[in-house]
Amino acid sequence: MDFTVRFGTEKDVPALLRLIKELALFEKEPEAVEIDEETLLTHGFSEDPKFRFFVAEQDDEIVGIALFYERFSTWKGPVIHLEDLIVTQSRRKLGIGKALYGKVLQYAYTNNYKRVAWEVLDWNQNAIDFYQSSGANYLHDWSVVQMDEEGLSNFVNQNI
Amino acid sequence: MDFTVRFGTEKDVPALLRLIKELALFEKEPEAVEIDEETLLTHGFSEDPKFRFFVAEQDDEIVGIALFYERFSTWKGPVIHLEDLIVTQSRRKLGIGKALYGKVLQYAYTNNYKRVAWEVLDWNQNAIDFYQSSGANYLHDWSVVQMDEEGLSNFVNQNI
Repeated sequence: MDFTVRFGTEKDVPALLRLIKELALFEKEPEAVEIDEETLLTHGFSEDPKFRFFVAEQDDEIVGIALFYERFSTWKGPVIHLEDLIVTQSRRKLGIGKALYGKVLQYAYTNNYKRVAWEVLDWNQNAIDFYQSSGANYLHDWSVVQMDEEGLSNFVNQNI
Repeated sequence: MDFTVRFGTEKDVPALLRLIKELALFEKEPEAVEIDEETLLTHGFSEDPKFRFFVAEQDDEIVGIALFYERFSTWKGPVIHLEDLIVTQSRRKLGIGKALYGKVLQYAYTNNYKRVAWEVLDWNQNAIDFYQSSGANYLHDWSVVQMDEEGLSNFVNQNI
């Protein structure tokens, strides 16, 4: 069945949230999703949106999304960060993920960004193989560090 | 010798670039720095700045910086990304890095961000120990993937 890829609009936010939750389940952290539709609408559709997203539509249903935004590299200048690339379980292996991924790369290339970056789980070998075969560099020695809300509160109250 | 920490201004951009280059050398990629003072000025001091930075000043010299900006987490909403935390080699072990780090965490906490994230090299055990002792989570199974300018050009021209 054919699918189309286009920019997401406010009407797509419920489907976006559904897919965000599906990915969190796959990544074994379903309880980590604190965001809601209102927050997505506020930040995605303000005058200066904090993110944009492509949707893949098949048979009038949103079956995948790629959500991205700008970051600033002190080596390259403005770059694109691909925050989420999600295809719903039942529609995998149809080229939908590759089409969404390609749209983000094309967007970055067309708009003269010098890099697209994202993060991957080390055990997600299918994803790593796909990224590498497309010409991306898997920087296995660069890992993510995060301080969450509780950590911030503890740190600030103990140290500042 | 005492030091002070404050927000960086346009006058601090030459020192910022010098420290960015010093960090790239430490990370064994000195040739990767393509940015210049003009690009830093354009993007850091526009109406909607793409980044902000704190500087540590000691004896009228900028001896460290912490550069950060906003990202968008699809789990948490707006979060802070700490892009670079740099203290010049000759002024390490004096608490300057911790003070800059604390300023960024305090900024995030005060402005109700739910997370601060950054990236670390797996072999930089001193940094990892420091981050963990402060309450941050080292997500060793989340690694960075990047497609650079050449990769983007190749991908788009071959696939789109």
